Amino acid sequence: MTSERPPYTAVIFSSQRSASTPEDGYDEAARHMEELARRQPGFLSMESARNADGFGITVSYWETAQHARAWKQVTEHLEAQRRGARDWYVDYTVRVATVERHYGNAAGH
Amino acid sequence: MTSERPPYTAVIFSSQRSASTPEDGYDEAARHMEELARRQPGFLSMESARNADGFGITVSYWETAQHARAWKQVTEHLEAQRRGARDWYVDYTVRVATVERHYGNAAGH
Repeated sequence: MTSERPPYTAVIFSSQRSASTPEDGYDEAARHMEELARRQPGFLSMESARNADGFGITVSYWETAQHARAWKQVTEHLEAQRRGARDWYVDYTVRVATVERHYGNAAGH
Repeated sequence: MTSERPPYTAVIFSSQRSASTPEDGYDEAARHMEELARRQPGFLSMESARNADGFGITVSYWETAQHARAWKQVTEHLEAQRRGARDWYVDYTVRVATVERHYGNAAGH
C-alpha cells in the first residue's frame, strides 16, 4: 500500500511467459529492472505475482503519467522491453491507468 | 486483452493470503466470485496471478466506474468481501483506476 494520495498512475503489465530456461536471462533482468525502476523519479511502489503456469501481473505505481512515460523510455528499460517481446513473453499487455481511489486494511492506511 | 477501447475501469485487488487450509472455503469462493463477476453488467475481463508465497493480484475490467461499483455491492460479493477480510487475507488493497491507454502484442489488438 502506497501512502500516496490519489490520483496517481498505475502501469498494469500482464504477461504470459514463454517456456523459461535458467539461461534465458529473465530472472536477472527482472530483478535489475525492478531495482532500476525504484530509483526513477516519481516512483511510488511496485508489486508482482506470477502463477505456476507462467501468467503474471506486475503493477508499478507512479506520481504522474509523465513519470511512468519517462521510465518507459529509459535506455536499459527499452532494451529489456525488446528482449521481453522477443524472448520472454508469448503475450503481454500494458495498461496505463489513473488510480482515482484506494482502500484496504494494509498498514499505512 | 480486452477488445474494449479506453477509457474503461480497472479494479486492482492486491492481497496477501493468510495460511490457507483446504477447508477454509477460499478456492471455491474465489471460483464462484469469478463466475458471478463475469455475469455482471459492464464486465469486460478479469485476470489473476498469485505467487507461491501467497501474494496475489487480481484485476477486473469494467466498462465504467459505475459498473465496478455495482459489482462491489452485489450481496454475495459483499459476503465474500467480509469473509476475505476476516479469514482469507492478512492484507489487501483495492485500487479503482481509469485505463487511459493500452497496448501489447496479444490477439485482439
